Amino acid sequence: MGIHEFEPRDENFDGKVRESFALQEAMKTIGCSIDSLEAGKIEIHFPFNKALTQQHGFIHAGILSTVMDSACGYAAFSLMPADAAVLSIEFKVNLLSPAKGDAFRVVANVIRLGKTITVCAAETFSINGTKQKRVANMTGTMMAVFDREGIKN
Amino acid sequence: MGIHEFEPRDENFDGKVRESFALQEAMKTIGCSIDSLEAGKIEIHFPFNKALTQQHGFIHAGILSTVMDSACGYAAFSLMPADAAVLSIEFKVNLLSPAKGDAFRVVANVIRLGKTITVCAAETFSINGTKQKRVANMTGTMMAVFDREGIKN
Amino acid sequence: MGIHEFEPRDENFDGKVRESFALQEAMKTIGCSIDSLEAGKIEIHFPFNKALTQQHGFIHAGILSTVMDSACGYAAFSLMPADAAVLSIEFKVNLLSPAKGDAFRVVANVIRLGKTITVCAAETFSINGTKQKRVANMTGTMMAVFDREGIKN
Amino acid sequence: MGIHEFEPRDENFDGKVRESFALQEAMKTIGCSIDSLEAGKIEIHFPFNKALTQQHGFIHAGILSTVMDSACGYAAFSLMPADAAVLSIEFKVNLLSPAKGDAFRVVANVIRLGKTITVCAAETFSINGTKQKRVANMTGTMMAVFDREGIKN
Repeated sequence: MGIHEFEPRDENFDGKVRESFALQEAMKTIGCSIDSLEAGKIEIHFPFNKALTQQHGFIHAGILSTVMDSACGYAAFSLMPADAAVLSIEFKVNLLSPAKGDAFRVVANVIRLGKTITVCAAETFSINGTKQKRVANMTGTMMAVFDREGIKN
Repeated sequence: MGIHEFEPRDENFDGKVRESFALQEAMKTIGCSIDSLEAGKIEIHFPFNKALTQQHGFIHAGILSTVMDSACGYAAFSLMPADAAVLSIEFKVNLLSPAKGDAFRVVANVIRLGKTITVCAAETFSINGTKQKRVANMTGTMMAVFDREGIKN
Repeated sequence: MGIHEFEPRDENFDGKVRESFALQEAMKTIGCSIDSLEAGKIEIHFPFNKALTQQHGFIHAGILSTVMDSACGYAAFSLMPADAAVLSIEFKVNLLSPAKGDAFRVVANVIRLGKTITVCAAETFSINGTKQKRVANMTGTMMAVFDREGIKN
Repeated sequence: MGIHEFEPRDENFDGKVRESFALQEAMKTIGCSIDSLEAGKIEIHFPFNKALTQQHGFIHAGILSTVMDSACGYAAFSLMPADAAVLSIEFKVNLLSPAKGDAFRVVANVIRLGKTITVCAAETFSINGTKQKRVANMTGTMMAVFDREGIKN
């Protein structure tokens, strides 16, 4: 997708992303951890968990969306100035293959950085032993917000 | 949205939807229950749960998506023939307002019924005492699948 | 979709929408005219035109998208303050039925109005004699921009 | 996006795509030509045309969508068996930058090939002299249809 290299506008981007991620109770419930983080890119990992399945025993598409949305949000947040908070405006998910596997890896990249609007793309891969397979992708639109009540950066 | 009335093609639609819903471990984890169900329409309810929040303490957009995706799936499934299983192909979510509230109500309707492809629309409302507010919506594309390995109807 | 009534923030909303619409050369090329306009809602009409078809002789999905995007943009623009210009951030289209007919009617409504971000929903109906049929819908995210170079309100 | 190499299931894929493309009157109206075509991938080119602009003089987002939708459709069609026709089910477009330029290049790739459902990604680049800039992208869901009345392959 022609991913660019980005210059972070907040030198503490690593710290602020990890701090915000730790506040997302949903990430703990899903069992997510950050595998890698750089300016404009993040990888998140989570194990299979029966408690998060749909009727055929695959991970629910909405759970994949939860992790991809967080990944898009933090890829965007990593490039925002220090006084910005991040909100998801919208996202679109395609389910490409059943989400079965021992674990899952989500990768998100910023594909368009703006002052207010940042567009990200994320993909989810299932991990089965040494095999990886793309199971879903997302395009998400993230917004930088400033001084909004109840929305901390 | 000009919702139509539909004739179910499976007279046991109520039973099969509730049975499949009960198999979705993700619905239990979120605390979802079916409020009402008719051919082509479903309402699902779930309480606020801190374990499902994002960094500002609102319910995570992906969790809303999980419930809206299930709701779209079951609205579609209720109109499918007895030998069909249902899969989500894709969905698109707009986040309209922060998901804060005592509880949440998700309503999904079939807006286009096809032999293979069914399109649904869902909305999530936050409930605060007697007030309800729309916080998110989804357009989802669902597919009827037949005789696919590992995908039971 | 629970459409609200809106108060315009620019009393000249009718004039400014029609003026901007007249500047869209694409609307002329498609043969569009405004059927009705109120604060937060617009209806646009265009005739069948073979020059805009896809390979089966139906109106191309992208042409429907063009009109729905303009309709979403102007529904949003009608509620923006006098110094705002409108830009489309993103949209999502579902094709529900082949776009064949003598003419087409597109209706767009604002479903969430914000200071920066406004979300709209549009539908396209084919007209065949006295029959109308929904052939496509859009959810679109519109942005109010101020003082941006090259983007006039 | 991890693009795969694909084996065409119809050895006449090049001919059938060009024949169908030639039937799309909308492509002629926009001034599109095929720059390159292989199994699962297509590039389409079109010049700036004032007749296709929005109110600020940029190419209308819906016109970009028209070309990206055709590109997605033909990327998918190139991999379909000889007796299949292709229909767009849905697409999602993000507008990344104003579509101003001397000409535009649209590239579409199949990212998930299925028997019925094929998912494609497309991007539009503006061309200004020797500079190219990504101005929009699409994720589109395409469907193979067989023996449907009025829908020729």
